[in-house]
Amino acid sequence: MTAPAAPGHPEERARTIAFVTYPGLTPLDVVGPLQVCSALADLVPEFTVVVVGEHKEPMSTDTPVSLVPSHTFDEVPRPDVLIVPGGLVPTLAAMADEHLLDRLRGAAADAEIVGSVCTGSLLLAAAGFLEGHRATSHWMFRDLLTRFGATPVAERWVEDGRFVTAAGVSAGIDMALHLVRRLAGEDTARLVQLVIEYDPEPPMGGIDWAAAGTEAYTPFADELLAQALEGDPGLLARLRG
Amino acid sequence: MTAPAAPGHPEERARTIAFVTYPGLTPLDVVGPLQVCSALADLVPEFTVVVVGEHKEPMSTDTPVSLVPSHTFDEVPRPDVLIVPGGLVPTLAAMADEHLLDRLRGAAADAEIVGSVCTGSLLLAAAGFLEGHRATSHWMFRDLLTRFGATPVAERWVEDGRFVTAAGVSAGIDMALHLVRRLAGEDTARLVQLVIEYDPEPPMGGIDWAAAGTEAYTPFADELLAQALEGDPGLLARLRG
Repeated sequence: MTAPAAPGHPEERARTIAFVTYPGLTPLDVVGPLQVCSALADLVPEFTVVVVGEHKEPMSTDTPVSLVPSHTFDEVPRPDVLIVPGGLVPTLAAMADEHLLDRLRGAAADAEIVGSVCTGSLLLAAAGFLEGHRATSHWMFRDLLTRFGATPVAERWVEDGRFVTAAGVSAGIDMALHLVRRLAGEDTARLVQLVIEYDPEPPMGGIDWAAAGTEAYTPFADELLAQALEGDPGLLARLRG
Repeated sequence: MTAPAAPGHPEERARTIAFVTYPGLTPLDVVGPLQVCSALADLVPEFTVVVVGEHKEPMSTDTPVSLVPSHTFDEVPRPDVLIVPGGLVPTLAAMADEHLLDRLRGAAADAEIVGSVCTGSLLLAAAGFLEGHRATSHWMFRDLLTRFGATPVAERWVEDGRFVTAAGVSAGIDMALHLVRRLAGEDTARLVQLVIEYDPEPPMGGIDWAAAGTEAYTPFADELLAQALEGDPGLLARLRG
């Protein structure tokens, strides 16, 4: 989609930031960075933000709210920035959804930046994008990236060329502020941060990873994967190594 | 709404956490704490989370995504926890929307906790709840709370009896983790934090309030207020003092 040039910015090419939606996703994966990028678009008319999906119909999430995209994939064939959210079982199942993966391949073809939040990186990996790249994901599924030839990295977000992947759920906000800085400069990114008052104070402090005992969740993660890929034993076997 | 007792928890009363929606809101105000509370409900079957609105129809936001509530206000007459999100001009205009304010008065009547995110506190104030209470809001509109007899406090979230108000937009995540701790204990709150991987790393650090120059935005905030309350000059005059 090419948005019309904004008044006062006739020389600048409109740049479209597209957020992907699909049924069952984790809504904070979308709405966190969407709020950041919408503030960018309010401040800098060069940028247009859209939310794309197969249909412009209400889409279930892993919470009681449903989301309705603003555009279909067909209406935004070549966004400049594409962001893919994650989720739990529906996202793991979507690794075998060739129709959705084809949508991502098409939309990402010419994109300057291809990003993901949480397990959205597994969809980028399943679509064939992350082979040979460093990437991250939700801690519970991060190591699956190796099965697609990517190198998992335990960082809040990981930038490798045009691929920018964020850790789990809330990490999309941090990644999006980084993207705003990359796209529009640090002053604008600071203003966006002020607009959304992003001055986090987790009431119990950050996550104490040493105490979190994440390795105890491996059987649970494997059970979710098996449930998600019940219909694709070949992919399941490949991902289980 | 009284949800059926979850299997294995027959003795415990179901507790309903309701998120309010109305047209034009800031979606991160809802979806941040909603994701936190949905993780709580996944972990502790005693809790049920709903998203309420006037109709179960797509509702515009200040971004390109629309939200669809899971329930009408009528279907959830007496939630145990009520959370009211904010927004910009539509929220400021809603301070004069007696129908919405009546909905809030009804839903909050028996609630153990009445919370807000961002300018949602102005709706609680306009509904008459915050007189004599300490509260917070988005920094740009926080001082308006004084016009409703509340005492504005520049903190990430402010708890005063059953009223828990959060600062702007992203502050709802911090507030919601605090609420989970209050409702279900610190261990559960830490687990929720791990599930949503809330270990924030703002790429440019937190907000430098001394350098932010927030006072420069006062005329802009007043302009937005005037635009929002064009149809209610009496309330506008009262809020301008």
